[in-house]
Amino acid sequence: MTYCVGMLMQEGLVFLSDTRTNAGVDQINTFRKMTVFEQPGERLLVLLTAGNLAISQAVISLINERMQSQDFNLIGVPNMFEAARHVGECLREVHSRDARALSNFGIDFNAGFILGGQIAGEPPRLFSIYAPGNFIESTVDTPYFQIGESKYGKPILDRIFSAQSSLTEAAKCALISMDSTLKSNLSVGMPLDMICYSRDSLKLERQIRIGADHPYFLALRQHWGERIREAFRTLPDMDVATCQKAAS
Amino acid sequence: MTYCVGMLMQEGLVFLSDTRTNAGVDQINTFRKMTVFEQPGERLLVLLTAGNLAISQAVISLINERMQSQDFNLIGVPNMFEAARHVGECLREVHSRDARALSNFGIDFNAGFILGGQIAGEPPRLFSIYAPGNFIESTVDTPYFQIGESKYGKPILDRIFSAQSSLTEAAKCALISMDSTLKSNLSVGMPLDMICYSRDSLKLERQIRIGADHPYFLALRQHWGERIREAFRTLPDMDVATCQKAAS
Repeated sequence: MTYCVGMLMQEGLVFLSDTRTNAGVDQINTFRKMTVFEQPGERLLVLLTAGNLAISQAVISLINERMQSQDFNLIGVPNMFEAARHVGECLREVHSRDARALSNFGIDFNAGFILGGQIAGEPPRLFSIYAPGNFIESTVDTPYFQIGESKYGKPILDRIFSAQSSLTEAAKCALISMDSTLKSNLSVGMPLDMICYSRDSLKLERQIRIGADHPYFLALRQHWGERIREAFRTLPDMDVATCQKAAS
Repeated sequence: MTYCVGMLMQEGLVFLSDTRTNAGVDQINTFRKMTVFEQPGERLLVLLTAGNLAISQAVISLINERMQSQDFNLIGVPNMFEAARHVGECLREVHSRDARALSNFGIDFNAGFILGGQIAGEPPRLFSIYAPGNFIESTVDTPYFQIGESKYGKPILDRIFSAQSSLTEAAKCALISMDSTLKSNLSVGMPLDMICYSRDSLKLERQIRIGADHPYFLALRQHWGERIREAFRTLPDMDVATCQKAAS
């Protein structure tokens, strides 16, 4: 599986992805799930991918191929809406090539993408693109999208993150959301890829790969574990001894 | 959907279940998913059910029917292993009656149960019973089982709960696990049913129904939300400004 999250806020965008792929539990590999498309000073786009790895890679290859040969491509589109449409169209092309063959083997056409970024003249925007190539856009009410193993890491995002969060808070919240997922699900694994994008910078500045020995991530995991246990200890106790026996 | 958790510890057992059932989003109902079988002083068994409600109810009706008419029944079995076998057999009987008809309508035979309790002469035991009627037993290494929408509430259990936890801690941890699930998934809903069972008491003492206005649960939700945000605020910040630009 996979866990990726994209977050949109006043200050910019944060993207975080793991790198584990697996076909069963005995075929585990490491693949980057974050792809950057950049024209410094003009646009920065980040694509996060989940689902069947062959599909994700085919879509990315197709996007790259079109950047060489066609006018309407990810570096040429005038705005983020058209960028999401373009990714959706590449996904549809891969579907039209591969879906029947996969189906013959009982394999679903499983793909889910997050596309975010900024093109000069627009604010930063964030999209969630589904397997059929359709997509939705993030708003202040729902300022993040997740793909892959999203459930373990959702409660902390719902409690902490908002469109008013700072980039630093969002990055921290994304890493804790990832940590909860890593702790509970073996199909999500290190290293991680993270990008923190400052609104209007229009270039890739802060991209890091976080390995299992990354000092900040280690410190964050340890502190968070301790703080959670401490927070738990200080909660009021239920007086279970006095609970009434209710009718069944 | 459903969220139920059963926890086994030195001090006894804690069971918690929600009450929401749904067939689509426009057909939502409230059904108890916790059933108690008791012979005070001799045995207390608690069954939590998830999956297709018609299947759960059929299994419980069959268990009750057999308590009236057959020697080998849930009140007669000599130990918890045989109790789990008996529930598994009732599940298999419902499968043999209903699975084909459901399959004709494209409906899976979807059921998952947690059975826990104590029978005089044994320590408390906890089982997770699958749709085919097979089951596994909890040990100190894995002292809890979840059924239904289990992912949202798993990280907090993994961080806090162990076989050495007190009944009070376990009850609190179960409620926080439920709160995280309620917050992130509409298919899990109030009211909740909870049982805290003290080892060797061999009777039902502390069973409560927790509605949306239950003062302790309200206080717990509020405090936990505040403590989590406070714990988050006191975490070290990542210095995103100095993150190196890595090779893509």
